[in-house]
Amino acid sequence: MAEHPPQDPSNAHPSKPKGMTYAEAGVDIDAGEAVVGRIKEHVQRTFGPRVIGRHGGFAGLLRLDYNEKLFKRNFREPVLVACTDGVGTKVVLATQLGRHGTIGQDLVAMNVNDMIVQGAEPLLFLDYIGIHKVDPELIATLVAGVAEGCRQGGCALLGGETAEMPDVYKPGDYDLAGFAVGVCELGKVIDGRRITPGDVIIGLTSSGIHSNGYTLVRAIVRENNLDLEATYPELESDRPLGQVLLEPTRIYVRSVLGVLNRYKVKQPVLGMAHITGGGLPGNVNRVLPSNVDARIERSAWQVPELFRFLQRRGNVAEDEMLRVFNMGIGYVMVVRPHFADSILEQLRRAGENAMVLGRITAGTGKVTFA
Amino acid sequence: MAEHPPQDPSNAHPSKPKGMTYAEAGVDIDAGEAVVGRIKEHVQRTFGPRVIGRHGGFAGLLRLDYNEKLFKRNFREPVLVACTDGVGTKVVLATQLGRHGTIGQDLVAMNVNDMIVQGAEPLLFLDYIGIHKVDPELIATLVAGVAEGCRQGGCALLGGETAEMPDVYKPGDYDLAGFAVGVCELGKVIDGRRITPGDVIIGLTSSGIHSNGYTLVRAIVRENNLDLEATYPELESDRPLGQVLLEPTRIYVRSVLGVLNRYKVKQPVLGMAHITGGGLPGNVNRVLPSNVDARIERSAWQVPELFRFLQRRGNVAEDEMLRVFNMGIGYVMVVRPHFADSILEQLRRAGENAMVLGRITAGTGKVTFA
Repeated sequence: MAEHPPQDPSNAHPSKPKGMTYAEAGVDIDAGEAVVGRIKEHVQRTFGPRVIGRHGGFAGLLRLDYNEKLFKRNFREPVLVACTDGVGTKVVLATQLGRHGTIGQDLVAMNVNDMIVQGAEPLLFLDYIGIHKVDPELIATLVAGVAEGCRQGGCALLGGETAEMPDVYKPGDYDLAGFAVGVCELGKVIDGRRITPGDVIIGLTSSGIHSNGYTLVRAIVRENNLDLEATYPELESDRPLGQVLLEPTRIYVRSVLGVLNRYKVKQPVLGMAHITGGGLPGNVNRVLPSNVDARIERSAWQVPELFRFLQRRGNVAEDEMLRVFNMGIGYVMVVRPHFADSILEQLRRAGENAMVLGRITAGTGKVTFA
Repeated sequence: MAEHPPQDPSNAHPSKPKGMTYAEAGVDIDAGEAVVGRIKEHVQRTFGPRVIGRHGGFAGLLRLDYNEKLFKRNFREPVLVACTDGVGTKVVLATQLGRHGTIGQDLVAMNVNDMIVQGAEPLLFLDYIGIHKVDPELIATLVAGVAEGCRQGGCALLGGETAEMPDVYKPGDYDLAGFAVGVCELGKVIDGRRITPGDVIIGLTSSGIHSNGYTLVRAIVRENNLDLEATYPELESDRPLGQVLLEPTRIYVRSVLGVLNRYKVKQPVLGMAHITGGGLPGNVNRVLPSNVDARIERSAWQVPELFRFLQRRGNVAEDEMLRVFNMGIGYVMVVRPHFADSILEQLRRAGENAMVLGRITAGTGKVTFA
C-alpha cells in the first residue's frame, strides 16, 4: 500500500506545544494525511494477486510466485532487474501549464520501457515526489497518473513517498523520481550479443516528445515567444502547443512482452532499445556488438510535424535533432529476418505503429543513416 | 553498474550544430560523463556474487539465487519487499555546511532500516539525485556515501540516476531519493501480530538526529542565531554543532538480521520499529495489535544532550520533542521475555548500545510513557 506520507510525519497527532512546533517550522502534516486517502483507490487498481497486504508495514510486499504451479514453470533462474529514472524538465512544462494528470504516466514509462529492453517483466514500481508544499489535489493527480502508467505497464504501485521540502523546491515546483523492479530468466536476458549482419531493425512510433529533450524544447518556446496555449497550423493538431508537448510517453510493455512470450524456444528478438536522450544514434548503439552497424533508412518513417516545427523555430541542426529527440521512433527491436514480418504483424495487432527501419550491416558498433 | 548519466545524455557525442544546441540550452553532458568514471569503483565495492554485469544495459541485474544450493534452501516462499524514502531537509543542512560525504549513508539508512522491520534482507539499492547542475566532485562524494551505506546495509548499489534540472533546483541545491528491494520468507514476515502483554521492548540507541526533524532543527538554528561552525559546551562534544547535526544515520541491518538469523525455528522477535518522524509514539504503535500498549520507561535511557540543547534553544514542549525526534532511540524490537537477555547480549556483541525500554501491557494499540 502506497502511503505517501510526508517525509516527516512527526505531527501526525499534533500535541499542544508551548514553544516552537513542527507545523510552525513549515511542515504541514494534515495535508499529507489527506493525500493518503485520496490516492488509495488509484493505487489499489494496480495490485495483482502477487501483492500482499501489510500490517503497519514500513515497506510494500510482493510475492515472487515461487511455487510449483506458477513461478517455477516460468523461471528456472530468475534475475531481478531494477532501474530508476525521472522525467527531467518535463515536470517544469507540466507546472507551467498546470496540467499534472499524465506526468505520472511519463515517469512509469521512462522506467518500464528501459526495463523491457532486456526482456524483463515489470513487477513493481515506487515513486518519490519532492515538493515545495503538499497539495493533496496535486499529489492525488500525480499519483493517479503513476497508477495509470503502472496499469499500462503491468506492475504494482507498491509504495511511494512525498517529501515536503520548502527550502529545496520553489512554490509550485516539484520533482518526480521512479523506481521499477522486474524479473527475467537469466538464460533469456536480451543483450544484443547475437545480432549479426542481415538482421532487421524494427521501429515502433512514439506518441510525441516522450520525456527527453524538454530543456531544449522550453528554450525554443521561450526564445521564440511561442504561446503554449495557442494552436499552430503547422502542428496539424487542433490541440494547443502545450498539450501537444505534454502528450504522455507511450508504454511499450504489453506489445513487446507479447512478442517475446510468443517465442518461448526460438529467440528471434536479439536486441532492443528505448529511444531516450541520445536519440536513435545514442541508444540503438548501446545494444550493438562491436562488429556491426545499424543502418537506418531515413525514408522508412515520417518524422512528425512537431519535431519539424521545433527544428524550424529553434534553427536546430538535423544532427542535433536526431541526438536530442526520438524523431517519431520511441522503441527499436532488432530481429532475425525470417521472423520480421510475423513480429511486425503481432506488433500491429497489439496496437503499435511499427515498420522496418533498416538492416544490420558489418561495422564498428554504430548507427548510420541512409 | 550505476551509470548516473545525466537525465538527457543527448549530447554525449556532441555534434557541430549550426543553431541552438542542447548544451546552450543549459544541460552539460561532459560533466555528467565525468561522474560515471569517478563513482564506478565506489559502486563496485557493493557488488556481491549476485550482481550480474550488463552489456549496454538500461537496468541493473541481480540474480535471485534460485537454485537448489542456495536460494531454495533459504526461502520456501520468497517475498519481495520494496520501499522508498529520501533524507528530507537534512540535504539542506549538508548544503549549508558544504559537507556531502555522509548524506548518502543517511539515504540508505532511511530505506534499509525500514525494510528490516519486517524481517527482510536488503538485496539492492538505487539512488536518484536531482540537482541544479552536475558537479562531478559533488556527485562522486554523494555516491561514495551511498555506496558506504550499501556496504553497511549489505545490499548492492545496482543503479542510479542524476538528473540535471536547473529550473527546478536552485544553484547548489539537490535532492536525494533512494529505493531498496529486499527479500523475506512469507511465513516469517514480522508484523507484530503475535505481540502479547508481558513481551519486552528493547531499544537500540541512535547515532544522533538521524534523518527526520531537520526542518525544525534548522528553524531552531536560524531563530536562535546558532553558529553551525561553533562548538557548544552543552553538547559535550568537541565537534562543531553542524557536524554533530550531520552525524549519519545508524544502519541496524547487520545486528538486527544477526539476531533474526540466530533463531531459525523459534521466532522470539515479534515486532520491530524504525524510529523516524513521529518518534517512539508514532512508530512503535505501527506494529502493535489493537489490544496491547507499549509502556516505555523514560528512565530506561539517557536522552542525548543534543536533543536537550535543541529543546532548550527552541523552547519545544517535551511531547513535541518525543514526536519529532528519536530522542536517542533509533530502533525498537519487541521480543519474548524468555529471550530478552540473550538478544540484548547478541545486540551488544554486534556493537549496538541496547537496553530494555519497557513492557507490553493490555491496552488499545498505543505507546504510553512512565
